[in-house]
This record gives sequence, structure tokens and C-alpha cells, in this order.
Amino acid sequence: MEKIQAVAKHIAEVKKDYDGMVVVASAMGQTTDKLIGMAKQAGDHIPKRELDVLLATGEQQTVALLAIALENLGVEAQSMTGFQSGFVTNKYHTNAKIKEINTERVEEIVGSGKVAVVAGFQGLNEDGDLTTLGRGGSDMTAVGIAAHLGWDCELYTTTDCMYTVDPDLYPQAKPIKAITYEEMMEVTNLGADKIETRAVEMAKKYNVKLFLGKSLERDKSKGTYIMSKEMIINENLLVEDMPITGMGIQDEISIFTLRNVPADGKAVAECFNSLGELDINVDMISQQMAADGTCTVSFSCGIEQGKALAAELEKKPAFADIQVGREGDLAMISLVGVGMATHSGVASKVFQVLAENDVRYYHITTSEISISVTVEMEQKLKAAIALCRAFHL
Amino acid sequence: MEKIQAVAKHIAEVKKDYDGMVVVASAMGQTTDKLIGMAKQAGDHIPKRELDVLLATGEQQTVALLAIALENLGVEAQSMTGFQSGFVTNKYHTNAKIKEINTERVEEIVGSGKVAVVAGFQGLNEDGDLTTLGRGGSDMTAVGIAAHLGWDCELYTTTDCMYTVDPDLYPQAKPIKAITYEEMMEVTNLGADKIETRAVEMAKKYNVKLFLGKSLERDKSKGTYIMSKEMIINENLLVEDMPITGMGIQDEISIFTLRNVPADGKAVAECFNSLGELDINVDMISQQMAADGTCTVSFSCGIEQGKALAAELEKKPAFADIQVGREGDLAMISLVGVGMATHSGVASKVFQVLAENDVRYYHITTSEISISVTVEMEQKLKAAIALCRAFHL
Repeated sequence: MEKIQAVAKHIAEVKKDYDGMVVVASAMGQTTDKLIGMAKQAGDHIPKRELDVLLATGEQQTVALLAIALENLGVEAQSMTGFQSGFVTNKYHTNAKIKEINTERVEEIVGSGKVAVVAGFQGLNEDGDLTTLGRGGSDMTAVGIAAHLGWDCELYTTTDCMYTVDPDLYPQAKPIKAITYEEMMEVTNLGADKIETRAVEMAKKYNVKLFLGKSLERDKSKGTYIMSKEMIINENLLVEDMPITGMGIQDEISIFTLRNVPADGKAVAECFNSLGELDINVDMISQQMAADGTCTVSFSCGIEQGKALAAELEKKPAFADIQVGREGDLAMISLVGVGMATHSGVASKVFQVLAENDVRYYHITTSEISISVTVEMEQKLKAAIALCRAFHL
Repeated sequence: MEKIQAVAKHIAEVKKDYDGMVVVASAMGQTTDKLIGMAKQAGDHIPKRELDVLLATGEQQTVALLAIALENLGVEAQSMTGFQSGFVTNKYHTNAKIKEINTERVEEIVGSGKVAVVAGFQGLNEDGDLTTLGRGGSDMTAVGIAAHLGWDCELYTTTDCMYTVDPDLYPQAKPIKAITYEEMMEVTNLGADKIETRAVEMAKKYNVKLFLGKSLERDKSKGTYIMSKEMIINENLLVEDMPITGMGIQDEISIFTLRNVPADGKAVAECFNSLGELDINVDMISQQMAADGTCTVSFSCGIEQGKALAAELEKKPAFADIQVGREGDLAMISLVGVGMATHSGVASKVFQVLAENDVRYYHITTSEISISVTVEMEQKLKAAIALCRAFHL
């Protein structure tokens, strides 16, 4: 409750600078975990529809309490649940996608001078059932409303901004003033709490200027803006013309290598189908043709998820002749920067730095604005620090 | 959570006897009090609209958990919030009245063989705002749905049935097998948890057969039926033709006596207007004309509420010439029974019994099926026991 009070005070202060304001709130502290614990006590099998009904109460409680706290500070406010805020989603309970946002009521409240306090993370599907938006759902709610209103969106977390690399790992890491949507989507782990890629994607689609700052901190010179390259240039936030904006690191990943895969693509499709069913996110996908007309496919995923997938693939008849290799205990280091496209030689510099430091790298994938390599976990730190120094991160 | 499991098991058992079933659930244990405590911490002034948003989460959590528990017992179930169940209310937050119930979705669920688990106590007003139905709101939800479906309604509480008089007061009290809606509305305190008068009223209006039983008790021979006199006779539940069905007792009441009131009715209206504004329920209203053309009005209310009212009336210019008398520390004893209309001499027997036992009674009001007297708190027990013996309660 002290946090509710502190947040309310912060909102009351910030409100003075704006004509209209919508606040999107998540569930308090450990509420969501507690509710999940209760659901587990109710039964081993938890229907996702019912879990959504239960979880949606967390945000609903926060918005009511926040609206009460705001009113007591003399700020007119009105809470809104997901369905009241017009969030129509598809049917996928616990991980629903937004289909439509009807912001009439929110606009009405804002138009009347009140702060609309919207429950994040939730909506209603076309059957009239409560849904939740999955991980980072409240980010989606906030960006979605900002997109519809043509407003900017500020996301507040526990870290003060994004850094060129996780400062826990490399204390000399520099704060990032501004980063493009594309860079942010490539590397979602730049020393700040993760912003869900879906939310960044939506912000990019609707050109919503995102600001990432620390809760209760009013000094905006500290946070990080996430926007298009044009917006960054227009707002003079491109401090230096550096090829690399930041470095993301993912620990404990597995690399799968499927060899002797028939080139008709069926086995590959079946494998990625299993990944989808097991809800495994993959990265670093690459495919090469072998001399005999078969192909080799590799991709990365989390170690634990990799074990589940390996067990799954073993059972599949289509995989009888396919060699499934799996290497664990790797780290993936990704360098991202829109400047990479115009600065040649980034890749060769990466390989050179790693070679000079005796770091062996296993897999490489690149995109227009990123390059990722896997290294052994125990070489991760050495590799990361060497690359930070080389690219002045 | 053990209670949720126990209730789910009970429902699974009972379900076998019925083709369709709707379960209405309240918030668990102390949830509502906890939520009110949180609201108070958020601010001294609690907008009722926001309190409703907060309180509605209590029932929403119960229905989700209960649906999960039922599914795990192999009973197909689906939770429904108030708005999903079609409860449209008026705008009076925290004490909304039901305007309309659209049970299509509930009927759909029941029609598909599932148990509909409905969140009691809540609805949506025509502005699309969440509302709660006030005290006994879940009873209203249950009776409302039963009325629309043309079904019977069973209400489960912590006591096993209603008694002729509170057994804590008079251990020889007898269980009541059946009682009419009218009797139940006259005396809502017959040794059982109170059923809200509004719910009984609605049951009467739509002829819903009510059964009041103890939670988790399957033996229906123990509970109390609340229905019309015709239904009681048809079902052979009228065991004896007794004039008095039961005795209700209200402690700590005040009696107001307004003397020298102008007969134009304005001051009386103003007084009852204040009662409404202060949310005070009154009882035992009576008015007599005085010889000088003015009148004397008296009524009862709770002691604490009476103090607030007295302070309010003092300020009113219209009351300058009116003598406001207030006696506190009284108890009201009410005898109720539809048989009273056909058994003459009930009133005289009451006065005789009280006189024989040296109990002084202050005010008397009667209706077709009830008689109420006020006595001093310290004479309450003596009076009650004497009347119980005299009327074989």
C-alpha cells in the first residue's frame, strides 16, 4: 500500500505537466504469483479460461486502489478494467492477442479532465470471456492505448534506463539515451527490465514514442527513449554515430543441430511445430544445404526447454533418420546497432576481438542490425568485456 | 482453499440429482473485510465506484477457484462474473438494485451440461460500471437467477435451519420446517443467518421456492423451506396449525417519539428523509393524533444510528417546536405467524403473559401476521422465554 501511495503522489506531480493522462497499472507485488498458487491448490488441472478470470482480479484491485489514492490527493481519477477500456482479444486464454481497442470510454474520461487508471494485461474476447495478454501484457495495454490516442508512452520499471550492456556484468556500461525499435527488438536485454518485444513491435507499427524510466523518478534525462531512427535524429538524441548501440547476453542456452534432414522441409516444419506446442522461443535459426542434398538446421533455445524438445523429437517417426545434436551450457552474445548497416567491418572486428582473446565461438547469425555468436558459458565474461572495450560500450 | 475443495465436492455430489445447476458464490472468508481495509489504507475518502471495482474481485476469485476445483473433480464448470451473468443494475454504487437480468449466457452454459458458477453480489450499471448489490447481495443474485430460470433456490449458511427463536437465547427452540415469505420478511432473525429481506421479497414476487440449509449438509430434512402458504400446504409441510411460527429479537434499539408535530406531514417527511440520507432502517412506525390537532410519531432504530439522527434533527429549523424524545437500551420482540390472522386473541395473550411476568412493555405495533413490543434490555430474556413457553416455540 505504501507503493500505491508513492505512485499516486508521483502521478499527481507528473499530471501537472500534461493535459490528459492515462495510467496503466499491473498487479501489486507478488499478487499474480499468489493467485497462481491458489489456483494450483484448487486443482492440478487449471483451465486457462478460469486462470484468466482469477488473474484479472490482480490488476482490477490495483486500479481501484490507485484511483482511491489519487482522489485523496485531489486528482480526479477513474479506474477501468480491461473490458471497460475496450480491449477485445482473440480466444487464446492466458496469452491472448489484442484484436481491437475501443478507447471511447477512456477518451471520455480523459476528456472530462480525469486520469483514467486502466487495468493492464487484460481484455475480453468476442465470446465475452475475460482474457489476459500473457507476459508483458501491461506493456501491451499501455502501448495499445497510446497508439490509439496518438500519444507518447512511458514505461516505468525498477531500473533507471537501458545500458549498452548489463552493468552487473560490465560496470563501465554506458546509459543509452535513445535506441531504435528495431535494435530494441533484436536485443531485449540491455541491462533493463525486459520490455516485451510485442509491445515494441506495436509501438513501431503505430510510431509510439516510448520512454523507459525508473519508477517514481521524475528526471527524464536519465531514462531511455525507444523510437524510430528518424525521431532519434529529429530530437537530437543521436549523441555519437556509433556502429553498435548495445550488447545483449543470454545465458544457458542450448544449440540444436539437425543433420541429414530431407530437403522437402517436412521434418523441419514438424520440429518447429513441436517448438510451438512446447511454447519454446527459438533464436539463431540457420540452415545450410549439405553436399548430398539433405540439409543441416540449427537453432538455439533455453537449456531446460531444449531437454523437453529433445525428448519430444525422439518420439517422432519423421526424425528416425535425422541426427539431433544438442550442445548446452552456451551463452549467446548479441551486438545490435542500426549503425552496423553503414559501418562495414563490424563482423570481422567481432571475430578478430574474440580470436585475440582466445574465445572460441560456435555459431554465428546476423541480421541487418545485429550479430550474434555463441560462446561457452565460462568464456562469456571474457568475451563480453573484450567486445565492450572494442566497441566502446 | 480447503473450503473451496469441500464445497466443490458437495456440488459434485448434489449435481447427480439434477439436470442443470447454477452455483452462486460469495467472496471467501475475510476477503471482503481485507479489501475494505486496503481501500481505507489507500485513502480516507473512498469513492463508492472504486470500492465496487475493488470488492467485485472477491467473488470473481471465488468463482474461478471453484470452477477449477469442480473441473478437477470431473464436473464441467464455467465461472461467470456479474456482468457476464447479465446483471444490469441501477447506478447506486455499493448498494445497487437489480434492474434486469439477462440469463442467456447462464442458460447456454447450463444447457451444455456445465455447472455455471456465478459471482454473487455484483453487476454492471447502464454506464458499464461495476456495481455491487450491498448486504445480502449474493442472496439476491441466487434468487434472481432462480426467478428467471423458474427454478428452486437453495441458500447455504453456517446454521442448519431456522428456529422458532434464537436457540442461543432459548435452547428449547424448535426447528422450523417451512415458513411463508411474509413471515420471513417480518422477522429476519429466527436463529439462522439473516437472509436479506430484499431476496425474500424477490422470491415471493417470482414464486421461487427457497430452501435454507447448512453448508455441505445434504440431508434436506433438516433445513427450512421459505415459500407461499399454498406451497406449504401443497407439500404437506404445515406440521401443526400454530398461530405463531417464530420469534425475532432485535437488541439495542432506540425509540424516537416526536410530539407536537404539525399535522401537515412536512416535518414527518423531513424526518424520514434524514433517515434515508443517513441510511437508517426504521421499524415500528406509528402515529397518533393528539387532542390539539398535532400528532405524535414514534419509530424504532438502532441506538448508534439514533444518536446520529438526533444530532441531525436538532439542526433542522422545521423541528424547532417539535419535542424529540429518545429512549435507548430497549429490545424489540416480534412474534410472527400467518396463523395469527385466523387465531384470535394472540395480542391479548402476549400482553397477559408479559403482565404475569412483570415485564413492562413500551411500544406496540402490529401487522396482519406479526406483533412487536419493546421491552427494557434487562427484561428481554425473561419476556422472550415466557412468550416462547406460552406459544410453544
